[in-house]
Amino acid sequence: MAAPEGQWVLMATGRSPTNIAVIKYWGKRDEALILPVNDSISVTLDPGHLSATTTVAVSPSFPSDRMWLNGKEISLSGGRFQSCLREIRKRACEFEDEKKGIKIKKEDWEKLHVHIASYNNFPTAAGLASSAAGFACLVFTLGKLMNVKEDYGELSSIARQGSGSACRSLYGGFVKWCMGKKDDGSDSLAVQLADETHWNDLVIIIAVVSSKQKETSSTSGMRDTVETSPLLQYRAQTVVPSRVLKMEEAIKNQDFESFAKLTCADSNQFHAVCLDTSPPIFYMNDTSHRIISLVEKWNQSEGTPQVAYTFDAGPNAVLIARNRKTAAVLLQKLLYYFPPQDKDLSR
Amino acid sequence: MAAPEGQWVLMATGRSPTNIAVIKYWGKRDEALILPVNDSISVTLDPGHLSATTTVAVSPSFPSDRMWLNGKEISLSGGRFQSCLREIRKRACEFEDEKKGIKIKKEDWEKLHVHIASYNNFPTAAGLASSAAGFACLVFTLGKLMNVKEDYGELSSIARQGSGSACRSLYGGFVKWCMGKKDDGSDSLAVQLADETHWNDLVIIIAVVSSKQKETSSTSGMRDTVETSPLLQYRAQTVVPSRVLKMEEAIKNQDFESFAKLTCADSNQFHAVCLDTSPPIFYMNDTSHRIISLVEKWNQSEGTPQVAYTFDAGPNAVLIARNRKTAAVLLQKLLYYFPPQDKDLSR
Repeated sequence: MAAPEGQWVLMATGRSPTNIAVIKYWGKRDEALILPVNDSISVTLDPGHLSATTTVAVSPSFPSDRMWLNGKEISLSGGRFQSCLREIRKRACEFEDEKKGIKIKKEDWEKLHVHIASYNNFPTAAGLASSAAGFACLVFTLGKLMNVKEDYGELSSIARQGSGSACRSLYGGFVKWCMGKKDDGSDSLAVQLADETHWNDLVIIIAVVSSKQKETSSTSGMRDTVETSPLLQYRAQTVVPSRVLKMEEAIKNQDFESFAKLTCADSNQFHAVCLDTSPPIFYMNDTSHRIISLVEKWNQSEGTPQVAYTFDAGPNAVLIARNRKTAAVLLQKLLYYFPPQDKDLSR
Repeated sequence: MAAPEGQWVLMATGRSPTNIAVIKYWGKRDEALILPVNDSISVTLDPGHLSATTTVAVSPSFPSDRMWLNGKEISLSGGRFQSCLREIRKRACEFEDEKKGIKIKKEDWEKLHVHIASYNNFPTAAGLASSAAGFACLVFTLGKLMNVKEDYGELSSIARQGSGSACRSLYGGFVKWCMGKKDDGSDSLAVQLADETHWNDLVIIIAVVSSKQKETSSTSGMRDTVETSPLLQYRAQTVVPSRVLKMEEAIKNQDFESFAKLTCADSNQFHAVCLDTSPPIFYMNDTSHRIISLVEKWNQSEGTPQVAYTFDAGPNAVLIARNRKTAAVLLQKLLYYFPPQDKDLSR
């Protein structure tokens, strides 16, 4: 039965995993378009674990665009949401569902309002890339709803305008965000280096040191770093380009030793430029430092890396074990040195 | 009455304060001669507070060189002690005390052995520059005993071979260690920028966060940084030279705003290159970070810096207040936010 005129609701649901950078993105050359100062490389997590699930609905009965995050309404007035909505609407295509009596012409999408409900199955804004998963999912699901035909590369460039690292969550596996050269940002997008079946041995363990929201948001933190750190441009222009090439090689060859050394060094250098910012930004705490020491000592005693660590804009450790056996030993060590009653690990 | 042949003991005592770098020394270009990768600038503390007191004695009855640090005998076999002893002996001059019947000819000094007793009135190897005060005092006191005629600049170059930053403790006030250019290190010495009467308003408060000995010694830490940090050379060659010029200006003009900004930024950049080292070096802890946040927020709320902070190779904060009134407020704040029962401040 066809829906009464103006009463229908059309919905789409999508899920996007978060991604963890192994060569870090820190610093924009264009704030509005979200264009980075260097390339970055990430691993996309299994969507069954840390991910955002978003349902978008459209209906002639909706008087305005609205959004709920984890059940709480949030404002869509920010430039980042508006950019994503505008860019997806621009690319919307005709849609018809004869059974339901729904027909939306290309030009209709501009007038139809959306309701968006998004859930993260992990702490928000605690340095676990919740905005990456969130914006990737928003763009992907809106694209699905609005019958957008563009490929993931193009969608990644739209997601980038919501949250830079979101562009890397459009693909699974290993993903590179090419900084691009153009002023309009059209070449600043994600490419898949290897899909999720490549290097299946790796196991990622996230040690949640604190699920509190961070004091310094990534956006304002990286702006301060760009403006005040004398070391950032050297990192972006001289250190990162060669690291990106080495990391691509390491991933291609499943060379865990190089992968781990580059991952740890780049995490530490990202936190170094945060410290070189005025006023300094601290994302890691004493517990983070203890986790690093544990891993470094272990790797040293084995003669070759067993585990890589990387920390985003928060104290939580992302630990990448070379295989399942190592991951099991890592978990034992974590439980031994950071017993669950420890306040630092309580949530 | 003349001493019986071979029974006399000749002694000298000296005291040297520690110094606190405001433009940091981190990294050697020559490990044996202790030649740094950049100039550094420090403030010498009042000798009444953090200082080393050393008594050196010489006697024909001493069969070997020996040394006691804080009452415990330590080995003098290290290259650093040997360099200082050799360089001072080389410059020793004839000494005569007719009353005591002592006559030491220039060439006799090579054969006479010394006993050295040194005390620090503050924690050793806790990142409070104990070795700077210690070696400055050793060289100064040995020079006094052995009637060395060289000026402080030359003595500073000898003290440098004991511990790099020791060269800066030969002078009071504001001191610059010029890295020098020569391979033999003869131009790598300290010069006084302003004496201890200049800029008398400043008050230095040291917040001892931990008096434990540090895990990573400065010597091995800076070697690792030189070998593994991609950012260090850029800091040494590009960032520090311009900071040194600005810091000299700030000191000359008693411009506290510039002084404080440069001091804090350079402390943070030193810890940034430590973090950029593989494996990373952490000297500051959560308490250090809280102290920095307290100072940064206060400075921001006042619109202009009231206090500068700087951290050496340990978690202890060196706080420089612009005047006595500010220092009093700073102490109140420290006592309020870090009450004495707090375990972090216990010794």
